[in-house]
Amino acid sequence: MIKFITSNEHKFQEISRKLENSGFSIEWIKLTYEEIQADDTSEISADSAKKLSTHINDPFFLEDTGLYIDSLNGFPGPYSSFVSKKIGNPGILKLLDGKDRTARFITVITYCEDKKFHQFTGILEGSISKETKGSGGFGFDPIFIPKGFDRTLAEISTDEKNSISHRTLALNQLILFLSERDD
Amino acid sequence: MIKFITSNEHKFQEISRKLENSGFSIEWIKLTYEEIQADDTSEISADSAKKLSTHINDPFFLEDTGLYIDSLNGFPGPYSSFVSKKIGNPGILKLLDGKDRTARFITVITYCEDKKFHQFTGILEGSISKETKGSGGFGFDPIFIPKGFDRTLAEISTDEKNSISHRTLALNQLILFLSERDD
Repeated sequence: MIKFITSNEHKFQEISRKLENSGFSIEWIKLTYEEIQADDTSEISADSAKKLSTHINDPFFLEDTGLYIDSLNGFPGPYSSFVSKKIGNPGILKLLDGKDRTARFITVITYCEDKKFHQFTGILEGSISKETKGSGGFGFDPIFIPKGFDRTLAEISTDEKNSISHRTLALNQLILFLSERDD
Repeated sequence: MIKFITSNEHKFQEISRKLENSGFSIEWIKLTYEEIQADDTSEISADSAKKLSTHINDPFFLEDTGLYIDSLNGFPGPYSSFVSKKIGNPGILKLLDGKDRTARFITVITYCEDKKFHQFTGILEGSISKETKGSGGFGFDPIFIPKGFDRTLAEISTDEKNSISHRTLALNQLILFLSERDD
């Protein structure tokens, strides 16, 4: 049994469904764990996993997602959740007025088993829209247009989103890793 | 001998001068220490001090300063340094376009001696200017107008700034505490 540690029920539902479809059982550990301040999501996630590994013996993983905007030097990056809560999508749109809108979502999954750590990264390239659009998804979805699309992530169906998303790309790597390990 | 732990030489110079004028010797421990992610500077500072106290036996203190803007729900707050680096003062000015500009600087000092922790907070009320002004100070100083002034912190002389600043107010409390303890 693999434990997924997150305080976010939405994330747990989305990720557990996909893993169970691939034949892996997931247990939800609803826990807010400590995250350090750092510019890089991989570093934050690795540090959290290392600390959690002293308390948790079963295999477990963490998931972190951030939005990185090129013309804002990677802002809001690892602090996406804080920034979303404080200035929201209108704040991001204001900051980008007159600027290049290239951006990407990055998901990092850190998986820990027997005190060994493995990281899987999924990237979705795209750009920030001129205005908020769509009612699906959450967070920055209504202002993010994936490359090759003319709609925001919040205007795309859940199935379509799941087929291209940063989270799916990271998760697919985790599933491949788990499958190969089980062989 | 009291140790001041900071990686920021500017902070060390400013703070050690004031403490030495009050008769306290300060040793600079140039160290980047771990900070957790939290919405509240006091919580972050207390956590860092607690972790450092397992390695440092002598009395020591930490200093943290954040800018809190009311109409942005306290943004950038504990992430002021990250936000300043990423979107700078032009970013803050854009975010405040058409919004109330009330803001405050908050400094938290956490002092640790014999595994006991004491926190001292200094607050400077003010507002965000319409444009960047002045060449003194650093960080958000060129866009912060203290209450009762018509100039930004970067247009005010260092002496005048030090007489009113959030950092001075917190430091004065630390000095009072140290003086009373020595009686």
